[in-house]
Amino acid sequence: MMSAGSAGSPGPDGLFSGMFARGGAAAEVTDAAWLAAMLDVEAALARAQAGLGLVPREAAEAVGAACDPELFDLAEIGRRAADSANPVVPLVAALREQVRGDLRRYVHHGATSQDVNDTAAMLVARRALAQILGDLRTAADACARLAGEHRDTVMAGRTVLQQAVPITFGLKAAGWLTALHRSHARLAALRLPVQYGGAAGTLSVLRGRGHEVPPRLAAELELAAPILPWHTDRTPVAELACALGVTAGVLGKIATDVKLLAQTEVAEAAEPSAPGRGGSSAMPHKRNPVGAVSVLACVQRVPGLVASVLAGMLAEHERAAGPWQAEWETAGELLRLTGSAASWLGELLEGLTVDAARMRANLDLTRGLPMAENVVVRLGGTPQARSAVDAACARAVEEGLSLREALLAGPGTDLSPEDLDTALDPARALGSAGAFVDRALEHSREDT
Amino acid sequence: MMSAGSAGSPGPDGLFSGMFARGGAAAEVTDAAWLAAMLDVEAALARAQAGLGLVPREAAEAVGAACDPELFDLAEIGRRAADSANPVVPLVAALREQVRGDLRRYVHHGATSQDVNDTAAMLVARRALAQILGDLRTAADACARLAGEHRDTVMAGRTVLQQAVPITFGLKAAGWLTALHRSHARLAALRLPVQYGGAAGTLSVLRGRGHEVPPRLAAELELAAPILPWHTDRTPVAELACALGVTAGVLGKIATDVKLLAQTEVAEAAEPSAPGRGGSSAMPHKRNPVGAVSVLACVQRVPGLVASVLAGMLAEHERAAGPWQAEWETAGELLRLTGSAASWLGELLEGLTVDAARMRANLDLTRGLPMAENVVVRLGGTPQARSAVDAACARAVEEGLSLREALLAGPGTDLSPEDLDTALDPARALGSAGAFVDRALEHSREDT
Amino acid sequence: MMSAGSAGSPGPDGLFSGMFARGGAAAEVTDAAWLAAMLDVEAALARAQAGLGLVPREAAEAVGAACDPELFDLAEIGRRAADSANPVVPLVAALREQVRGDLRRYVHHGATSQDVNDTAAMLVARRALAQILGDLRTAADACARLAGEHRDTVMAGRTVLQQAVPITFGLKAAGWLTALHRSHARLAALRLPVQYGGAAGTLSVLRGRGHEVPPRLAAELELAAPILPWHTDRTPVAELACALGVTAGVLGKIATDVKLLAQTEVAEAAEPSAPGRGGSSAMPHKRNPVGAVSVLACVQRVPGLVASVLAGMLAEHERAAGPWQAEWETAGELLRLTGSAASWLGELLEGLTVDAARMRANLDLTRGLPMAENVVVRLGGTPQARSAVDAACARAVEEGLSLREALLAGPGTDLSPEDLDTALDPARALGSAGAFVDRALEHSREDT
Amino acid sequence: MMSAGSAGSPGPDGLFSGMFARGGAAAEVTDAAWLAAMLDVEAALARAQAGLGLVPREAAEAVGAACDPELFDLAEIGRRAADSANPVVPLVAALREQVRGDLRRYVHHGATSQDVNDTAAMLVARRALAQILGDLRTAADACARLAGEHRDTVMAGRTVLQQAVPITFGLKAAGWLTALHRSHARLAALRLPVQYGGAAGTLSVLRGRGHEVPPRLAAELELAAPILPWHTDRTPVAELACALGVTAGVLGKIATDVKLLAQTEVAEAAEPSAPGRGGSSAMPHKRNPVGAVSVLACVQRVPGLVASVLAGMLAEHERAAGPWQAEWETAGELLRLTGSAASWLGELLEGLTVDAARMRANLDLTRGLPMAENVVVRLGGTPQARSAVDAACARAVEEGLSLREALLAGPGTDLSPEDLDTALDPARALGSAGAFVDRALEHSREDT
Repeated sequence: MMSAGSAGSPGPDGLFSGMFARGGAAAEVTDAAWLAAMLDVEAALARAQAGLGLVPREAAEAVGAACDPELFDLAEIGRRAADSANPVVPLVAALREQVRGDLRRYVHHGATSQDVNDTAAMLVARRALAQILGDLRTAADACARLAGEHRDTVMAGRTVLQQAVPITFGLKAAGWLTALHRSHARLAALRLPVQYGGAAGTLSVLRGRGHEVPPRLAAELELAAPILPWHTDRTPVAELACALGVTAGVLGKIATDVKLLAQTEVAEAAEPSAPGRGGSSAMPHKRNPVGAVSVLACVQRVPGLVASVLAGMLAEHERAAGPWQAEWETAGELLRLTGSAASWLGELLEGLTVDAARMRANLDLTRGLPMAENVVVRLGGTPQARSAVDAACARAVEEGLSLREALLAGPGTDLSPEDLDTALDPARALGSAGAFVDRALEHSREDT
Repeated sequence: MMSAGSAGSPGPDGLFSGMFARGGAAAEVTDAAWLAAMLDVEAALARAQAGLGLVPREAAEAVGAACDPELFDLAEIGRRAADSANPVVPLVAALREQVRGDLRRYVHHGATSQDVNDTAAMLVARRALAQILGDLRTAADACARLAGEHRDTVMAGRTVLQQAVPITFGLKAAGWLTALHRSHARLAALRLPVQYGGAAGTLSVLRGRGHEVPPRLAAELELAAPILPWHTDRTPVAELACALGVTAGVLGKIATDVKLLAQTEVAEAAEPSAPGRGGSSAMPHKRNPVGAVSVLACVQRVPGLVASVLAGMLAEHERAAGPWQAEWETAGELLRLTGSAASWLGELLEGLTVDAARMRANLDLTRGLPMAENVVVRLGGTPQARSAVDAACARAVEEGLSLREALLAGPGTDLSPEDLDTALDPARALGSAGAFVDRALEHSREDT
Repeated sequence: MMSAGSAGSPGPDGLFSGMFARGGAAAEVTDAAWLAAMLDVEAALARAQAGLGLVPREAAEAVGAACDPELFDLAEIGRRAADSANPVVPLVAALREQVRGDLRRYVHHGATSQDVNDTAAMLVARRALAQILGDLRTAADACARLAGEHRDTVMAGRTVLQQAVPITFGLKAAGWLTALHRSHARLAALRLPVQYGGAAGTLSVLRGRGHEVPPRLAAELELAAPILPWHTDRTPVAELACALGVTAGVLGKIATDVKLLAQTEVAEAAEPSAPGRGGSSAMPHKRNPVGAVSVLACVQRVPGLVASVLAGMLAEHERAAGPWQAEWETAGELLRLTGSAASWLGELLEGLTVDAARMRANLDLTRGLPMAENVVVRLGGTPQARSAVDAACARAVEEGLSLREALLAGPGTDLSPEDLDTALDPARALGSAGAFVDRALEHSREDT
Repeated sequence: MMSAGSAGSPGPDGLFSGMFARGGAAAEVTDAAWLAAMLDVEAALARAQAGLGLVPREAAEAVGAACDPELFDLAEIGRRAADSANPVVPLVAALREQVRGDLRRYVHHGATSQDVNDTAAMLVARRALAQILGDLRTAADACARLAGEHRDTVMAGRTVLQQAVPITFGLKAAGWLTALHRSHARLAALRLPVQYGGAAGTLSVLRGRGHEVPPRLAAELELAAPILPWHTDRTPVAELACALGVTAGVLGKIATDVKLLAQTEVAEAAEPSAPGRGGSSAMPHKRNPVGAVSVLACVQRVPGLVASVLAGMLAEHERAAGPWQAEWETAGELLRLTGSAASWLGELLEGLTVDAARMRANLDLTRGLPMAENVVVRLGGTPQARSAVDAACARAVEEGLSLREALLAGPGTDLSPEDLDTALDPARALGSAGAFVDRALEHSREDT
């Protein structure tokens, strides 16, 4: 009865889905996916209770058989959800219709709507996270390759968007790798607990055996078992939101760098091209950094959503009147947007074109000025050395000279032309860049 | 070819739509509505240009005829949008397919994708706002009625959730009314300008006549004409987001009051009931404040979305690389959620049950203590009066007396029992409450 | 007794104040400024009530004389504020100490703490806004000058950070001007009402004459008179926050452009320099865009603060238990940060160096490709023309030719070399840029 | 030269500090504390480098001796910071003044301003977190005591603010405990790494030995050693912000419950009282929940600040132009506000008065209706049982009967009066409440 078409949440088929629902996570957070997860929870609950002797085995079987999404009309459940501010109420009513009369009472046994909704949310999260983790892995692998290949590719390090001193592209990619790696580990380590507390956390219907159920239910669904029902301790959702928020920030940082490197005037990196990709409707010659733009568009939306989840932690007593319900679509959006960004970035990094020659040429634009610090160092780092180099820099800027010319012309730096060339060679002024790249690569291999 | 079912954004048919997509606004922000608005823009652009002699009349007619949403495959356009980070690029390509060869060149004439996207966004906003304004009017009318009917209904004024001094329910409703009224006026006054600047704001394709188009286009679409193209001045969208944000806050304040008044232990107001509404899956006797919960769930999500829009104002040069694109779904969400909250609240207020007897009974729970200030006033407001009343209050609290008993027993307040009864009568201690109600009602009538 | 040194809020003397407390607004939002505003309110309230015959004239004089900030110990009041979650309670106690016994009862007459706090907040806002408006005016004037001077200075229009088609720097500056102008108008039009409602909005202490006070108080303080007490209708504060939020976004957009134009590889604009400014501790040659960075650092913090204010609108009953109190420092931060950003930007724009030659040289980097659209137009805009130009573009990119070379070499574009030069001249492809600049300048003059 | 009075950030002496700067954390995030931390970093850097033979021992000693906050003028450094958008630049200049000429070159050796700023931020965080952890421990201990003492104290469980089924106050306190405990563990486990990368992350000044420094520096400062310099991987700050954000949410949830329990009409819990505390300036009888209000006021401000930090992760290249700088005061605010909330809550919980009799009385307000589910269970949980009880509930509501009266009067429930009393006894319908309390207490003891 249900079809993808009747799903209301922004799945892979929307007008803006190309940008905001790329990759595998989006399909795991559609309304259809939520409905399927809710039914998975009801089925698992019956099985867990049957395992404990709390309901008959045949009830678990009957409930399990009825928990088939095809049997339910999602749009109708959504409409009826308005009566209770919760779709689980009409879903349970519809589910009971599907179960033979005398077993019907074991449907949703001892549970409250929030038990099903929260556990389904954790299930949806686990499934979407599996997709996101795969996309992060793709992105990290691409960074590792870039870091290795460009371990010694010299480029300008840029601070507040000004050329500063030379770095390597390998070091830049190693920084991306390290951040991605940590985000992967954080998401993989998230605790996603089942929820089962009944009407107000006591599970009174189960007459003192209720607390035996969560571990069983957790095992059924491959989720964690909580210490207590967490109806109004929204820590698990807040931790999920925050872990996604930090991940999105990491993805956005990398896309920011790519966006800037791809500028017409910089042109040190370019996104993978394909027929039709990156085109503009009005400018036939342009190649837009579509991937970086899409990552940034997704990521831009995340911090506000995280704030919504955190603000929603102020849950009243044993069930919140608003903040909890606000989590549902918000958590889905966080998974969808972070997932879409991860998918875009993985693909972008896999096909990234790096122009080492242009990197070097751009570094030469400043005619040796970023090497000034290095010359000071080569001169022994004394205040006198610094003064002399500062003066040469000033002359270079004023008179349009290269730093080399200014240093040769000026007093105070009695380096030989050979020593000067060494001091001015960016490739010899990379400090620990190579060691850092090696360390990042090693760490990324070890720790997974 | 397009069907509601293929829409990707959370329309009225989703699992959570009963809460988050109530009322008329939701249908105006679906992906299908966006697509229709984009086509409306393309058609209006051709008409406006024909009116100025910039394209042939027959071109405008041909484009207009082709701008029929039924002719387009929304999901396919969404998929192809990934190539350009914009659905307008494939939409224009598909639209050109629908127009006879020699007129095809007049499709999207002189326009860039963002022109269509931004103008469509303003159109979507105007249509959704019409619905929201209607719902706000319903809510305001209900408040006006409540304020009038309960102009003199005494209840406890509560500060930081403690009973303070008596107020009237009319004054509370008048406060709701005034806030709703201002939000209505703010939304109604929003400036929603068309966008038309071409590739980078010069409209160079139109050879110096481009700036004549926006006023015509604005007239065609009943939108405002901008001073300049605003591709990267996101003020109109930010103003829209903020106006919705303040409105949502007003709706949430009212729902907060209702939620608190409906508490089991307070029970001074109740939501309209209907069969099935407000029921709980586990507790047959409960009547949940479903409307207030739904308003609050919608409203909880709004501030974070407003922050996203504001953060996205930092647009680069002549087209932003991410922040702009992030606006699309975010603006839709803001309209949908504020609209749903307004719809819920209007209905809630129209059917709100007010229990004046319980209001009075609750005020009596504190046995006259909220009247202490009034007794001080009746005694002339002197420091001596205050000391005496303070002492009586302390005695009352310690010995479990009513304030009347404590005052009669204690020294320093030589009011006669009759004067004391007057001083302790909440209905005689309402200050300017009535005048304020009258003023609010008058103002709400005048100003619209 | 009070000294600037004892102020706790981040005034102009902090470690980070150089960036975040520049300009005049910061001094208007210090704790000392808040205290002074609170005392101004108490004094004005007594005067307003004396004017209405509600308190004796000599009481108003005595209260006014006592409302001297030098008489109060800010830090002590702050410490004692913890007992009531409000600094006005200990302030009023201390103020009463300063007034002769028999007139003491007229201090804070009929008022609740929130009356004073809210009205003081509006006063603080008005004073800080005056400074911000001045800084915005400086920035707008600089933009108007730049727009006029560079009305015809050709540069690359850039979309998603790629060169697109030519624009003028004048058009860019006109866009900045228009946005600043609107933000100025919005802030100048803000309604900042006094608050006076007594314990719960009825002003019962004034025995039915309370509602006469707010208009008088408003006149005393040059603030607006509200329809009703707005203790829990936080619209005025939310509107203030939103207006500042939009303004900050506008400031940040301009700083974003400057930051990008100042990149080493772009170098089309530079910030004003001064001895010591823009230096780096490690790189003697760098000139950092300190002003743009400071604007962006301030602006980055604003959207989250706006969200806090909006979320805080959900005020309970007649006084909120938390959200209201959260406004105090947040509103101050919004004023301080927006003010600091405006001050930085005004100074930056006044001294901005524009390198027209570099603008033209950068545009030539793409060897005519941004002119492709214009060539299509000159060829009549036919599909054939577009195909031919597209093909030439492709050849140019593949073979490293200029667009001119590729067009001359290829078929389908039979423009004479002279016509081709015309078609390829950016200065002849500026469409309505000049007209838009003129319109923006005219509008900015008219409307103020 | 520096005094607490010259500090600009909101320390413990401000007008609003009683609420927002309570407890020990606030003193650790003042500008003075930042300055001291920066100097600690400079001193530790010199020591670490001396240990590696990179600078002379006597240089480390001279730098260490000069790193005395008393020698520096904070306000002057703050003013001069505007020239470089960073206070470390003038601080280093001032520090060099304090060191004997020939050793001066070893000040800030190989470092960039951001190294010092970021490492100081981590140091500030560590010191403030120590205070926050102590306050969280106090709060958790109080919860453990409450959970134990009230393990069997019956009260109404409330969902969406309606009485639902009975719970115990012990279970509520156990939920608070579990959430606090997890937040404590999360904060205690935070990784706070030193920053040391030089101008752009290569540490080129140290000629290939730079990467040996961070582990030494980390050991000196009791911070973590990073894999790479993290100038533009803001993960550590984002993780800190998120951990504080979740903690603040937990604190706010508890304060929400206390605020609601302390309502006049509920009165099941009261805050500790002290002379002057909780008083109102206009209502002598009120006792405001000052602690809960203060917690909520602090907490309200946190989600927006977390969003600011997350949005600021989009750092450009090797040093961000704005987002990084925006972190400084924001991180301080997050520590201050979370710390103040934790301090308030610890004190509140230590002195919380619980009124078990009122809890029971409130539960009786609904005349047995919350026991309906339990009666169904006692009747075997059959559909017939549910129908009969539903009918009795309906009768009870309509006719103003207790559930007991309605059940005795109605058909279908043939429980004996004794069995009925058992079924209606809240104390016998607590399910796993006791087991959950025991589990939470055990877990909180084990895991620390």
